[in-house]
Amino acid sequence: MSYVNDNTYSVENSTKNNILIDMCDPDKKKHHSPMELILSAVTSCAAVEIVSMIKKRKRDFKDILAETTGFRVDQTPRYFKSIDIKYIIHSSDLKESEADRFISLSLQKYCSVGATINEKTNINYSFEIVR
Amino acid sequence: MSYVNDNTYSVENSTKNNILIDMCDPDKKKHHSPMELILSAVTSCAAVEIVSMIKKRKRDFKDILAETTGFRVDQTPRYFKSIDIKYIIHSSDLKESEADRFISLSLQKYCSVGATINEKTNINYSFEIVR
Repeated sequence: MSYVNDNTYSVENSTKNNILIDMCDPDKKKHHSPMELILSAVTSCAAVEIVSMIKKRKRDFKDILAETTGFRVDQTPRYFKSIDIKYIIHSSDLKESEADRFISLSLQKYCSVGATINEKTNINYSFEIVR
Repeated sequence: MSYVNDNTYSVENSTKNNILIDMCDPDKKKHHSPMELILSAVTSCAAVEIVSMIKKRKRDFKDILAETTGFRVDQTPRYFKSIDIKYIIHSSDLKESEADRFISLSLQKYCSVGATINEKTNINYSFEIVR
């Protein structure tokens, strides 16, 4: 990690891929904030597992999208008390019960990010299947 | 979040800033992975607080860098059992005891990302002051 300015940092991973992170006010914001990165990380980490399970089950898979919202506690440190993720899966034959099980297993059993997040943070999910 | 391919996702925050995330093998990797984002998030979140404290204390501040390593458990889900962060602070007059206290307070008390991370994950820090 290196300093860009008081509200902006540059971070590089071990394979030298770089991103910028900022903590600016919404009207000046150009990058994800650290807390937004947590939401993006858990949503995408579980998505990889969900798609893998859909394909292993040999169900049709066209697309997956998600909308994620984090709710923080009021006092410092303002950690997430809950995270709501809604997955929208495009598939012609994925059953509701399968989608439910795959998402639940991904978030609770397989996703490393989910398991790194505090037990005080409730990770809730919902889903919609688009035929 | 939207799907790019099985190992790559695009994520957009509420202010429409976009990043790509991938879970490719190191030789094919172009972006941060979800678990790397966690490391980047906690390191930068605390850095903002550290710099703020250095400046409030009216100490000289030239630069801050950090190197962060995460150690994961062997079994699935492979959450971080520990995260080691080394901060390198460039300052002509910041005392060792102040740096120690500012980093400790940032990680343990003020940083929202640190407080969102599991209590099973030990967040360790070290630091170096460059005069």
